[in-house]
Amino acid sequence: MKLREQIEAWHDLALKALELEIQDFKEVKPNLVAFIGLGGSGIVGDFVKALCYDVLDLPVYIVKEARLPKWVKEGSLVFAISYSGDTIETLIAVEDAVRRGSVVYVITSNGELLDYAENRKLPRVKLDEGYAPRAALPLMLYSCLNILKALGLVNLDVERSLEVLKDVKDNKAVAEKLAQGLLHNSIPAIIADARFEALAWRFKSDLNENAKISAKCEIVPESMHNDIMGYEGNRKPTLAVVLNANDQHLYTKILEEFVEEHLRELKVLVEELRLKGRDMLAKLMYGSQISSLASIALAEKQGISPEATVSIAKYKERLRKLASVWIRLS
Amino acid sequence: MKLREQIEAWHDLALKALELEIQDFKEVKPNLVAFIGLGGSGIVGDFVKALCYDVLDLPVYIVKEARLPKWVKEGSLVFAISYSGDTIETLIAVEDAVRRGSVVYVITSNGELLDYAENRKLPRVKLDEGYAPRAALPLMLYSCLNILKALGLVNLDVERSLEVLKDVKDNKAVAEKLAQGLLHNSIPAIIADARFEALAWRFKSDLNENAKISAKCEIVPESMHNDIMGYEGNRKPTLAVVLNANDQHLYTKILEEFVEEHLRELKVLVEELRLKGRDMLAKLMYGSQISSLASIALAEKQGISPEATVSIAKYKERLRKLASVWIRLS
Repeated sequence: MKLREQIEAWHDLALKALELEIQDFKEVKPNLVAFIGLGGSGIVGDFVKALCYDVLDLPVYIVKEARLPKWVKEGSLVFAISYSGDTIETLIAVEDAVRRGSVVYVITSNGELLDYAENRKLPRVKLDEGYAPRAALPLMLYSCLNILKALGLVNLDVERSLEVLKDVKDNKAVAEKLAQGLLHNSIPAIIADARFEALAWRFKSDLNENAKISAKCEIVPESMHNDIMGYEGNRKPTLAVVLNANDQHLYTKILEEFVEEHLRELKVLVEELRLKGRDMLAKLMYGSQISSLASIALAEKQGISPEATVSIAKYKERLRKLASVWIRLS
Repeated sequence: MKLREQIEAWHDLALKALELEIQDFKEVKPNLVAFIGLGGSGIVGDFVKALCYDVLDLPVYIVKEARLPKWVKEGSLVFAISYSGDTIETLIAVEDAVRRGSVVYVITSNGELLDYAENRKLPRVKLDEGYAPRAALPLMLYSCLNILKALGLVNLDVERSLEVLKDVKDNKAVAEKLAQGLLHNSIPAIIADARFEALAWRFKSDLNENAKISAKCEIVPESMHNDIMGYEGNRKPTLAVVLNANDQHLYTKILEEFVEEHLRELKVLVEELRLKGRDMLAKLMYGSQISSLASIALAEKQGISPEATVSIAKYKERLRKLASVWIRLS
């Protein structure tokens, strides 16, 4: 299945994820939840953190590197997510988490991480293979939500979130229009309010991986205390995508009644993506599908392949060499 | 004192901060440390988090907005930092933290936050007035480290960190050379490894506020899983500043032996800032002084004022109106 088709089938992929078995399930009453993962696998933790913000009274901490902070320890519940199962940074951090006595749940489709989890009988979900990691978002995210529900920590309305993924035709049309607006030649700013920070980063990464363009994220209100100053001179983005939460929150008012106005006064082109869905999970999934499809459409308009990620492969190969030397030295 | 002079005097300012009284000191055995603050005040939390990474076994959580997560609650130690004391987002979050029964330490020079803290006898440090918030970094940071030491949580080698701030002439020369390199007309990427993520954001913000240019941050290794793809096409930064930790860590090797090489192959101009100092606190302070001085020099080279922050003032005025309506509605 091509990347575009994988994304278009997200509704069914999410349903499939809900049916995957949690192997070697282990009860735990943690005092902290941590996520280890990078790139398309790492964004899952950001999404879960956003979803937990108002409903879980345990700290949710995200690790996007090989080093664990000292506060991930015995009593921590750790999710190690790597779609490929071969992400070295994740493997290093997982070994450390296990050594510290954390309860580690593994979500992966294959690779060294799967072997490691099976050998140690770590609680885990084995995902279907054959997807691009960024297209496997529903597989990883809904597996994770399933585990959190089984542990009695978070129980979200999953059914409701899937509604927004049903009308693929409509979503394709929104994405197509957005891609047209993104053709403008500039490094775009993706602007979201703090509740939807994770979605802004997903959008940026989709533009990186699929359309092969750089992008920057600006998160309201923090960006109003520094990034906004970058627009006073002439070295600035001339195109912004504003992720509008489509609600009555103060942050939405700041975006609509100040940020967008201000950018337009400065002659910055503004594209708005109004998030559909009745709750945060739905809005995150809707936004992710649009961002994926828009960046794929943008790639196609530029005549390039949205599928290949040559530079990432080059990095991974070099890291394998560098890390092996480093591990011997330390 | 002009902004440049304030920054050049950081060595003495840090010493002064260590002598400020902690009023209404309160013992606490927290299970979480949270920082509330935005912009030049908010970066203090990021720095402390980086400093705590390997030495504190309590989760350190950063809030750069008005909403607190559910996991900040009774038993949490909260630092509310606003140099001006009038940052609305911080005021909203602080009231919530107090309502939840967290122990709130206030670090401010003035404003509503000082009144609030004095009226409720919250433990606090009253800072000297008259600085730009971004120039008051040592005042805020070392006050905070002082409190953490008094609480028995973290005790860093403060003396050693001040060494790097002594040789202002050398630091000015390094900053001047960096500013010259930054004159190139592009949105620069500030690239750091995960240990120095906070410094990359400080650098970006200094460029925003002082030099009035946009910049983006790319954090290794996460950026190697997405941002790196943005360089394959022609919509990318053509200038990168690499913050080199100047040590033997795997991450430094990735930066030197892969990232810099890769960027140069792609014809991206690379400026490197090698961090001086014998520990992380020293490196953070050295890097911050260079970044401040370089961005001020860059402003001067462009013939603009590094001092004024007109757009931020415009935002704050509008927020005051929007928030007052919202608070009445909710």
